[in-house]
Amino acid sequence: MTIFEQRESAIRGYSRVYPVVFDKAQNSRQTDDQGKEYIDFFAGAGVLNFGHNNPLMKQAMIDYLQSDGVLHSLDMQTTAKAEFMQAFTDIILKPRNMPHKMQFMGPTGTNAVEAAMKLARRATGRTEILAFSRGFHGMTLGALAATANQYFRGAAGVPLTYVSHTAFGCEKPCVGCKQNCGLDSLEALRNRYLDPSSGLAAPAAILLETIQAEGGVNVAGKEWIKKVEALAKELGAVLIIDDIQVGCGRTGSYFSFDDLDIEPGIVCLAKGIGGAGTPMAMNLVHPDLDKLWSPGEHTGTFRGQNLSFVAGKVALSYFKNDELMSEVKQKTEQMKEALQPLLKSDSSLQLRGKGMVMGLDVGSGERASAIVQKCFKDGLIIAACGTGGRVLKLIPPLTIPQEDLVAGLNILINATRSVMEEAA
Amino acid sequence: MTIFEQRESAIRGYSRVYPVVFDKAQNSRQTDDQGKEYIDFFAGAGVLNFGHNNPLMKQAMIDYLQSDGVLHSLDMQTTAKAEFMQAFTDIILKPRNMPHKMQFMGPTGTNAVEAAMKLARRATGRTEILAFSRGFHGMTLGALAATANQYFRGAAGVPLTYVSHTAFGCEKPCVGCKQNCGLDSLEALRNRYLDPSSGLAAPAAILLETIQAEGGVNVAGKEWIKKVEALAKELGAVLIIDDIQVGCGRTGSYFSFDDLDIEPGIVCLAKGIGGAGTPMAMNLVHPDLDKLWSPGEHTGTFRGQNLSFVAGKVALSYFKNDELMSEVKQKTEQMKEALQPLLKSDSSLQLRGKGMVMGLDVGSGERASAIVQKCFKDGLIIAACGTGGRVLKLIPPLTIPQEDLVAGLNILINATRSVMEEAA
Amino acid sequence: MTIFEQRESAIRGYSRVYPVVFDKAQNSRQTDDQGKEYIDFFAGAGVLNFGHNNPLMKQAMIDYLQSDGVLHSLDMQTTAKAEFMQAFTDIILKPRNMPHKMQFMGPTGTNAVEAAMKLARRATGRTEILAFSRGFHGMTLGALAATANQYFRGAAGVPLTYVSHTAFGCEKPCVGCKQNCGLDSLEALRNRYLDPSSGLAAPAAILLETIQAEGGVNVAGKEWIKKVEALAKELGAVLIIDDIQVGCGRTGSYFSFDDLDIEPGIVCLAKGIGGAGTPMAMNLVHPDLDKLWSPGEHTGTFRGQNLSFVAGKVALSYFKNDELMSEVKQKTEQMKEALQPLLKSDSSLQLRGKGMVMGLDVGSGERASAIVQKCFKDGLIIAACGTGGRVLKLIPPLTIPQEDLVAGLNILINATRSVMEEAA
Amino acid sequence: MTIFEQRESAIRGYSRVYPVVFDKAQNSRQTDDQGKEYIDFFAGAGVLNFGHNNPLMKQAMIDYLQSDGVLHSLDMQTTAKAEFMQAFTDIILKPRNMPHKMQFMGPTGTNAVEAAMKLARRATGRTEILAFSRGFHGMTLGALAATANQYFRGAAGVPLTYVSHTAFGCEKPCVGCKQNCGLDSLEALRNRYLDPSSGLAAPAAILLETIQAEGGVNVAGKEWIKKVEALAKELGAVLIIDDIQVGCGRTGSYFSFDDLDIEPGIVCLAKGIGGAGTPMAMNLVHPDLDKLWSPGEHTGTFRGQNLSFVAGKVALSYFKNDELMSEVKQKTEQMKEALQPLLKSDSSLQLRGKGMVMGLDVGSGERASAIVQKCFKDGLIIAACGTGGRVLKLIPPLTIPQEDLVAGLNILINATRSVMEEAA
Repeated sequence: MTIFEQRESAIRGYSRVYPVVFDKAQNSRQTDDQGKEYIDFFAGAGVLNFGHNNPLMKQAMIDYLQSDGVLHSLDMQTTAKAEFMQAFTDIILKPRNMPHKMQFMGPTGTNAVEAAMKLARRATGRTEILAFSRGFHGMTLGALAATANQYFRGAAGVPLTYVSHTAFGCEKPCVGCKQNCGLDSLEALRNRYLDPSSGLAAPAAILLETIQAEGGVNVAGKEWIKKVEALAKELGAVLIIDDIQVGCGRTGSYFSFDDLDIEPGIVCLAKGIGGAGTPMAMNLVHPDLDKLWSPGEHTGTFRGQNLSFVAGKVALSYFKNDELMSEVKQKTEQMKEALQPLLKSDSSLQLRGKGMVMGLDVGSGERASAIVQKCFKDGLIIAACGTGGRVLKLIPPLTIPQEDLVAGLNILINATRSVMEEAA
Repeated sequence: MTIFEQRESAIRGYSRVYPVVFDKAQNSRQTDDQGKEYIDFFAGAGVLNFGHNNPLMKQAMIDYLQSDGVLHSLDMQTTAKAEFMQAFTDIILKPRNMPHKMQFMGPTGTNAVEAAMKLARRATGRTEILAFSRGFHGMTLGALAATANQYFRGAAGVPLTYVSHTAFGCEKPCVGCKQNCGLDSLEALRNRYLDPSSGLAAPAAILLETIQAEGGVNVAGKEWIKKVEALAKELGAVLIIDDIQVGCGRTGSYFSFDDLDIEPGIVCLAKGIGGAGTPMAMNLVHPDLDKLWSPGEHTGTFRGQNLSFVAGKVALSYFKNDELMSEVKQKTEQMKEALQPLLKSDSSLQLRGKGMVMGLDVGSGERASAIVQKCFKDGLIIAACGTGGRVLKLIPPLTIPQEDLVAGLNILINATRSVMEEAA
Repeated sequence: MTIFEQRESAIRGYSRVYPVVFDKAQNSRQTDDQGKEYIDFFAGAGVLNFGHNNPLMKQAMIDYLQSDGVLHSLDMQTTAKAEFMQAFTDIILKPRNMPHKMQFMGPTGTNAVEAAMKLARRATGRTEILAFSRGFHGMTLGALAATANQYFRGAAGVPLTYVSHTAFGCEKPCVGCKQNCGLDSLEALRNRYLDPSSGLAAPAAILLETIQAEGGVNVAGKEWIKKVEALAKELGAVLIIDDIQVGCGRTGSYFSFDDLDIEPGIVCLAKGIGGAGTPMAMNLVHPDLDKLWSPGEHTGTFRGQNLSFVAGKVALSYFKNDELMSEVKQKTEQMKEALQPLLKSDSSLQLRGKGMVMGLDVGSGERASAIVQKCFKDGLIIAACGTGGRVLKLIPPLTIPQEDLVAGLNILINATRSVMEEAA
Repeated sequence: MTIFEQRESAIRGYSRVYPVVFDKAQNSRQTDDQGKEYIDFFAGAGVLNFGHNNPLMKQAMIDYLQSDGVLHSLDMQTTAKAEFMQAFTDIILKPRNMPHKMQFMGPTGTNAVEAAMKLARRATGRTEILAFSRGFHGMTLGALAATANQYFRGAAGVPLTYVSHTAFGCEKPCVGCKQNCGLDSLEALRNRYLDPSSGLAAPAAILLETIQAEGGVNVAGKEWIKKVEALAKELGAVLIIDDIQVGCGRTGSYFSFDDLDIEPGIVCLAKGIGGAGTPMAMNLVHPDLDKLWSPGEHTGTFRGQNLSFVAGKVALSYFKNDELMSEVKQKTEQMKEALQPLLKSDSSLQLRGKGMVMGLDVGSGERASAIVQKCFKDGLIIAACGTGGRVLKLIPPLTIPQEDLVAGLNILINATRSVMEEAA
């Protein structure tokens, strides 16, 4: 028995899907302890936008360590933090005229969402938060109430309260979906909110991902999301965008909502913000909301991670010019094109996504699982998401080299064809 | 205006207490960007048990980075993780005959507590958890319900439910305390639990710190804690020890409860477990409980942090022999002795603690705050804790050199004398 | 100052709308202490289906009192109770092949709803209950969570949990309503319930009125209600019909759902069940559910009211033949006809209803209030209901004499014309 | 099978304990349909303080019915209501200088408690209510959260929240009780409330019975209850006295707290207030609280029951002079004396109580149940209460004739002796 079998909790998950021991990693490749290499279309669930062991980040972290830079500092001021914040302000916030403040908390996405929910409730004096079917926002009790998936919710052990869910407004409906996710549904909800006899009280916040990554790569329609913003404004609710998985350049722009013409009150960031894969989370909070915080009200030991500031600052440098984002756009097109023949050959398949987060909906979790296994055997790490795990999520590092992208797509296409044909 | 004043959230806390920008750190010293050095009696709120930039850890992390070790891996298997787990098993678990499994989750203490609460609720089919006045367990909604402090609770924005609090059983009562924290109180509570007409349902878990660090360095009495364990057993509740702040060697032994003759169902660890200050959290879960988890039910992006495994493995090496723990015992005595004259000179002062976590209760938050400020001016970082912030918490790195320990104590003693005399 | 002004709580309501002191009442007439008579189109909010001081009931109660019949007996067996139960079984249940058991509880509708919610939760092991916008189910905390009106909900003082609301499926939409209350909306909800990633867990029960009386006399469409029943069955949820206001003959048949071809698991009755206006409540519970109760689990002092059994038995005698129900059908037509000219003359008015519960929607609460006041001045008691109080509810005793019905309708028509003209 | 066996819900309770069909009742006697007479030491669980079919009340109700008095009127003004309110003001409130307003609600005790809880939460903006072990306050979800008994709580189907329970301060401890119910416990609780780090937030209300009747006839100590009142005042919480079972003269004075020198913000009344056993509930609300209600916020169909006003007014006439209350005091002494030999003969028995509500604690539910059965066979109706049903509750009509009181006591004493001897 390996040490994992002997001593790791039964809750372990990915190690069952990819039952090898990984040893090294570089950009879009992971190598196991037997020397076998895998192309990575998973990128740490969206953390490793800039590749494993990005050389610039690696060097910056080594330099920082060698210079005895402060590693752990709670929310004290450090030079590394100052530099990160300055870079974020100059490169991201100022060009967008975003007046938002940066709030650091425990270095997890769920913690960012919890902090956002607290502040929205304070700002409005309300308790309810409106979230969406298939949304994923974390595992701690407050965020878990907003996470839609029954498997995760079932672990709570107590009723999950103060969040209600409604249909998400997909740009195009998933195959077979009848959730009435369009504008009509939102308008009907609005009418119920405005009716004092509907049983619905106005929410403290509307919390959503612009693209539900875990939920199956469901992309919100632009008109729908504008209506959501208008509804939040009309009801006096805070608009919270959870950009944890699809922010930090994933969609071809820093924020996933850069082309959506919305102004969130709070933006939750984590995963990619730390650059190299060390933990960090940060909320961008509109000053009108931020001023409602008192010092230390939402505290945490690991808020403000200096290695993450150091590598995260390098990550921000990728947004000083258009180079990487242009590359993302080009790779996005390449991925779509490569998958076209497959999609044409089997009309039950559906491809969704925006930028370099794509979902290939194969219609059943069993098939998706078989494809994931076949891919892994063939040297590709890819994971399934969505209801019943029926969607293959393509989320490679943005920096993946051409040859790895092509090779990975080929493995995926072959595996999909083979599994789909067997199933037929 | 600095970038912090311009752009950091109003929620920032420690940067107000220590209003400088820290640049470097080595063992028990932090240096600001003006070159001023500070002795560190705070150690990142109990994270840095082995000192800032511990040379062994630093080197291990640099080596790991240079070798392109996997940095981010969710809960996949890595060589770094295997080595950490093997070391933890061999050095910590086996010598204690602890059959516990290791569960990794989001790298924060609050996340560890949330996971423990979920599992206890599942194991018992009950909702209520018994926690204690002055306990601190985190900021996310589930853990926050167990955190006693009204300041933190007030930020929730929704009622905090499914946790009730009773008096903590201090070894010796705090000055002026009348909470009836002794064995009588626990026996009365037991009788109410056993009475089907008491309105109290049996709890899913009893959750406690053996030493309430944030709560004012309140040390549980051994007899009391044995009775708590017996009560948990009698009621079929899980005993959860939150050893996040006082575990990992802080009290002179790896676990704070090594001398208490108790067998917790779940032990929550974080802070010091990652060695160098990079985030990590881990629950030790008895196999009878652990088997109730299904794969991935409590998930999280940053569970399993490889740099923390690397540095954490170095930290574990300090427990292969008695060297460091003997040093801790010696320093503990030294600290007590050094403070004796101060305590004798002012009977309103009280010293509490175990090993190298000590609380100097100065009776009021105003006085404590003045002492903290004076210390900082004189080159010592120390923080206040407890109700109203009236307790100075001495929690230096375990590796602090003699001369820094002596110098730090002198600064503290002088500042305390001066403030207490002014107040008198 | 009257004794009411001196000593009755500020919460008093109807005494502000009808600011006289009522002294006597007979069938559809109430007389105040100045001798002024009023025609009653309110009938105690649906209690007095058989008229004030129905002579048969009055005599039965006097006889019972004179014979020293048991008045108060909790849920002990009495002859009066046996006779009522036998009559209910023979006249109501057997002809419908309803195997339901009779459960008596505290003599209020809210208590009946609470008992039904408890049992549905037990039967399913679930917490959530699905209720509908504009529904009214009572004031105690469990039932209040199902009541949709924000005014009532706002008094709770704690969050109302474990009930969610969706659009009610009106037979025809209210003027200006955009709640998407049709079949599409229900189908979309069904799809979300069936989706394990929707955030919606299957409910313990679906709780509804077939006609929302307080909610504005909204009549459920037959196809919609069949779909609701089918959804309950599909999800394993209990179908609870709250027939408290519109049962007991009000719609021209004993139950409001007699023509809807549904089989509720639980039917909640109160108001009219006691015949003469003394309190009583009763749930009809399918034996498969009923057997889940243990003795005395939902107790109450005034369950089983003997005067209500006595008068209620008389009330049941009205259902031995078709006489009264035919009369109701005839009066229903008469009411509709009488109101036709008014409706034709003002297209903003809408008439809704079924049997002798009708709602005249005048579009605004101000207008409705003015009409209520004018009617009262002219000798007609009528009340407003619905969102913002914009619907006049016509709910006279079923036994109202022709001349009173005609006279009352004339007063109402004149008042409405006059107020609508003023408003125009 | 009887109609009860065929068609009454499995939840029926008392009909299992007293398996006969009662037909007639007069003062302290009930007669079954076979003509067997029973002496009544139960009095409808405290409803029938003035005896079954009290001749004055009976006549008043018959007269009222014959005169076509208004029977049902929601909260409109009626002459019967005016007369009741005037009598209550003159006889009860004015002599005590109580400025309280009368609030009528659904005619059940649980509804009164719900209304009180709502108002206390509004008045303080807080959610938590402090109640006591072994307290009984009703079955609807809000009140049920305050009811301590696990059997009733277990039927809720959802977690019961926003109420916490602490030990009740018995005048003298129950046999074998170790709940620490004295003043020390209350002082410790007070200290926790005052400590901002205790996890306890100040409550909206402290809700208690001065004598826990259902809970086992536990009589609060006077000093303890004064401290409870002081604590409520100190914390800004509303003191709510639930006098539903032990008010209306039961203890030898109108309110159970007349000799306790306390000033409740709200007093909940029901049961005996309606005189003859028809339902009614009423809260007495201090004007400073009452003014916070808006019209109709806590509504209900059967608030304001005219037959209950009519009989209730007769009941109030018993408090115009000392006659009945002197009789109660004399009978109280007589009961105690009669039971002395029994108590002396068996030191495991304990008698508790105040006025004509007494509890004979026989130490086990099995024994109590056997005694109840034997008594019933011998012609005495008496019920068990308290934890595990181990306390026989003596609560005869206050108007019980000497010979019935003596005869009933003899039956009880003999049954107890016989059962206790068998058990020994």
